[in-house]
Amino acid sequence: MYGNWRSAAAFRVRIALNLKGIPCEETFIDLDAGDQFKPDFLAINPQGAVPAFFDGDGPPLTQSLAILDYLEDVHPAVPLLPADPRARARARSLAQVVACDTHPLYVPRVRNYLMQTYGLPKEAMMEFVRHWFETGLRTLETRLVDEPGTGRYAQGDALSHADLCLVSLWVGTGIFGVETAPYPTVRRIAEDCLTQDAFARAHPLRQPGAPT
Amino acid sequence: MYGNWRSAAAFRVRIALNLKGIPCEETFIDLDAGDQFKPDFLAINPQGAVPAFFDGDGPPLTQSLAILDYLEDVHPAVPLLPADPRARARARSLAQVVACDTHPLYVPRVRNYLMQTYGLPKEAMMEFVRHWFETGLRTLETRLVDEPGTGRYAQGDALSHADLCLVSLWVGTGIFGVETAPYPTVRRIAEDCLTQDAFARAHPLRQPGAPT
Repeated sequence: MYGNWRSAAAFRVRIALNLKGIPCEETFIDLDAGDQFKPDFLAINPQGAVPAFFDGDGPPLTQSLAILDYLEDVHPAVPLLPADPRARARARSLAQVVACDTHPLYVPRVRNYLMQTYGLPKEAMMEFVRHWFETGLRTLETRLVDEPGTGRYAQGDALSHADLCLVSLWVGTGIFGVETAPYPTVRRIAEDCLTQDAFARAHPLRQPGAPT
Repeated sequence: MYGNWRSAAAFRVRIALNLKGIPCEETFIDLDAGDQFKPDFLAINPQGAVPAFFDGDGPPLTQSLAILDYLEDVHPAVPLLPADPRARARARSLAQVVACDTHPLYVPRVRNYLMQTYGLPKEAMMEFVRHWFETGLRTLETRLVDEPGTGRYAQGDALSHADLCLVSLWVGTGIFGVETAPYPTVRRIAEDCLTQDAFARAHPLRQPGAPT
């Protein structure tokens, strides 16, 4: 897999690989240096985004949720989606609150666009980042409190894609300085997950290139 | 289903329902009037976003890709994902280029944030919208041309979630005034789809509330 220590999308895939016991070697792409837009990497993923995941020789798989579903298809022994269609849909929906409606708004390409095209100072750009973190976290907190599907984890009592995405957002609050007090249910689930080896080993700050 | 004539996410779900032959009644939420943030609707979807889909009495299903996967689980007779795991992953990845990395950047809540918080005039905000349309379209075009999986449709010769998302983005180029000449392969697939009844009936401009 091509990834990056800070990438929330690579983090989600790394957790799934650990939970399913699939060995994986990760090559880190320096997003701050713009290595994702160099020809060598664009030949792998023309979008210039991580993760790009190779299973054997085949063409690379991209988009973290698509990779998670692929791992579900080919390594079903440790399931990360519930069997019931409604519960599956809820787990996917919670995952997508993060992976569709929150994370894509604070990736480097968007942060750079705001600073370069609009000439925003970094602090003004960071308001945008924190606003969408807070919007995503508030949606998760409200749904986790109100909806009967919540259990030990985001969907019931078994880990699912929803938890992988929730944790990837939660860890980002530390990296981006987002206030976390209003989201105790998100915190409860994230902290529970992060005590587990598969999550802890996948943590961004434990990857090569991360600040010490 | 609660939707809106202009919503690309509701459009995707509407196409899937038509293709699978599932009758559905749609209630239109006026996003410009902010009806998605009124208490009645927030009780349905605390995120204040469409679509929200009811199948029978159960709690509403949200997030368009999660709804598409749910429809796949419970109405598999007309499949909208290929059976092969790698082909499925590619169809999902192409769908997510639109539904994760493009569409969430131009929804009303983001456009309003840019104008209200940064005081950007509408035309400057529209540069942001068009930039991410173009980024998404360029990624799709490059991948559709370069990757061997492309056929009559985005993934092979059968319709998939990738086409539903591609068409929902393509139709948005007209609504937002995005230049389309650089994307002939996206155009070929979108125009092929839009000649088909299930797509044509789902078209935003054929829904209640749309401009004539």
